[in-house]
Amino acid sequence: MTSCANDPLAISADDVLGAARMIRGVAVRTPLLEYAFLNERIGSRVLIKFEGAQISGSFKFRGAYNRLARIAEADRAKGVVAWSSGNHAQGVAAAARILGIPAAIVMPEDAPVMKLANTRALGAEVVLYDRASQSREEIATALANERGAVLVPSFDDPFIIAGQGTVGLEIMEQAEECSADISQVLVCCGGGGLVAGVATAIRDKLPDVAVWSVEPADFDDTARSLVSGRREKVPVGASSICDALLTPMPGALTFPINRQLLAGGLSVTDDEVRSAMRYAFEVLKLVIEPGGAVALAALLSGKAPKADGATVVVVSGANVDADLFASAIA
Amino acid sequence: MTSCANDPLAISADDVLGAARMIRGVAVRTPLLEYAFLNERIGSRVLIKFEGAQISGSFKFRGAYNRLARIAEADRAKGVVAWSSGNHAQGVAAAARILGIPAAIVMPEDAPVMKLANTRALGAEVVLYDRASQSREEIATALANERGAVLVPSFDDPFIIAGQGTVGLEIMEQAEECSADISQVLVCCGGGGLVAGVATAIRDKLPDVAVWSVEPADFDDTARSLVSGRREKVPVGASSICDALLTPMPGALTFPINRQLLAGGLSVTDDEVRSAMRYAFEVLKLVIEPGGAVALAALLSGKAPKADGATVVVVSGANVDADLFASAIA
Repeated sequence: MTSCANDPLAISADDVLGAARMIRGVAVRTPLLEYAFLNERIGSRVLIKFEGAQISGSFKFRGAYNRLARIAEADRAKGVVAWSSGNHAQGVAAAARILGIPAAIVMPEDAPVMKLANTRALGAEVVLYDRASQSREEIATALANERGAVLVPSFDDPFIIAGQGTVGLEIMEQAEECSADISQVLVCCGGGGLVAGVATAIRDKLPDVAVWSVEPADFDDTARSLVSGRREKVPVGASSICDALLTPMPGALTFPINRQLLAGGLSVTDDEVRSAMRYAFEVLKLVIEPGGAVALAALLSGKAPKADGATVVVVSGANVDADLFASAIA
Repeated sequence: MTSCANDPLAISADDVLGAARMIRGVAVRTPLLEYAFLNERIGSRVLIKFEGAQISGSFKFRGAYNRLARIAEADRAKGVVAWSSGNHAQGVAAAARILGIPAAIVMPEDAPVMKLANTRALGAEVVLYDRASQSREEIATALANERGAVLVPSFDDPFIIAGQGTVGLEIMEQAEECSADISQVLVCCGGGGLVAGVATAIRDKLPDVAVWSVEPADFDDTARSLVSGRREKVPVGASSICDALLTPMPGALTFPINRQLLAGGLSVTDDEVRSAMRYAFEVLKLVIEPGGAVALAALLSGKAPKADGATVVVVSGANVDADLFASAIA
């Protein structure tokens, strides 16, 4: 499972273009927003790519639809199986519904209430497991084998990574529309699928742009792996309010891409995340979930490098329970 | 003060085009957002014009900048004076700061904390008054006379109305970009400046589009005035959580426009407003203040007519205190 620097990468920029054709007219082209007050605070242009407005409230719909749409017609009735703490769940459920494919999603019992409810409302079968004692991979794999269903990974899959990369294509188009010269892009990182896809798309066209991954402080496995050159694990007992980013180690497919294309890895504390959520409420007027706010937190906390040109902040999702949101903005 | 159907209207569509030229590159071209889940719920296309992303968190910056930019250089040092519960205050303060004009704003003591703080943070002098015992008009007029400052009304001014009308121009441009055929536009209404400007812009180009005003149930003076044909007052003791829309009667300049151009007036209860704020949090992922949510509330409650084509909902502002927002989404 270790990767060699000379291995071919799992996807190319052409795969992202293929994904863009596949999701066109189905996924939302989410807005790239600019705020005078934020520019003033940072001292240079900042552009917010708001994936909260994506179908299912996060970027996950892009990769899920790109993956599910590749399943042959004859195999669709057997369905798909996925595991997820919630955003991939909703993305798969929404894509499956549009394509008429039955979906079963293995989710932790302590997933956010909104994510469980939305996944069920989208028509998916939710299979709960106990995070402490059970393996979601084993449950999902057994279920897929039993049904002959397609297992849909949350990040370590070429179609998933390419689908998430469409965020990067849109950023470049929209930055051109508003005459912004991009210096750097800050992207949240769990398994690394979004940042790998975005980096693939952007650095193919704009090789001088620095793409940074941003993780919760206790889950900085990608940041450490980028330094050591091999896939490092998250220590036992790590915790964070960023439920969408609690991945134990970088992906086998995503890490080689990120190792080659990223400028480096940043990390932020839960307090910095809450502060970013509050700033988004007060100034940006956007709802952001904890995991969706890490890139903004890196910028506002001063952990991201200063840039001469525009900094693009990917706000990846907005599926947050009302009580957690209320406590963050209080 | 009564208006005759044959009086010339205060503004024309050309005045809105003039305002658009004036604010170009200064005001934000706010996004027009579309959500598959909302379309599905309503059964036809819905487009959300999100003025929460405007400078100062509401549409008010548009009219304020268009008015202040017309003040002769020689008169700018004497400053401007306005009265407002908060959004016009912030719009005037932000425009004054950009143009280098001193601003004093007369605000009620019980205005939302965020609106008071933002107005001061923008460099304006805030003069507090007691809503029960003092007249904001008298305080502001005395202050303006004393200083030789320009009084900036919150709605009854041709440049203010024309500036707010730029929302309508953007709606038409953006609807064309997403190939939407607009049937109706729902717009919040306090003094009626925003809806008058939007109706002027839109019905000049698209005379078949129905533009509706939406008010809080207790403050439905425009709805009643549209029926009676004369400017009706809000009864003493009326109350609503929509602090931005507590205007005692339609404007002398705005009402003749609205009388001629609107399809009619709708109204919504505070509970319908809270429910719309919760829906915006859960599904749209947008922060909306109570007064900014009335048009969405009219749509979600079924009070707006069914439309074959697209319904445009103007979300006019998002300056809401955290505790009120938390209670609305709970």
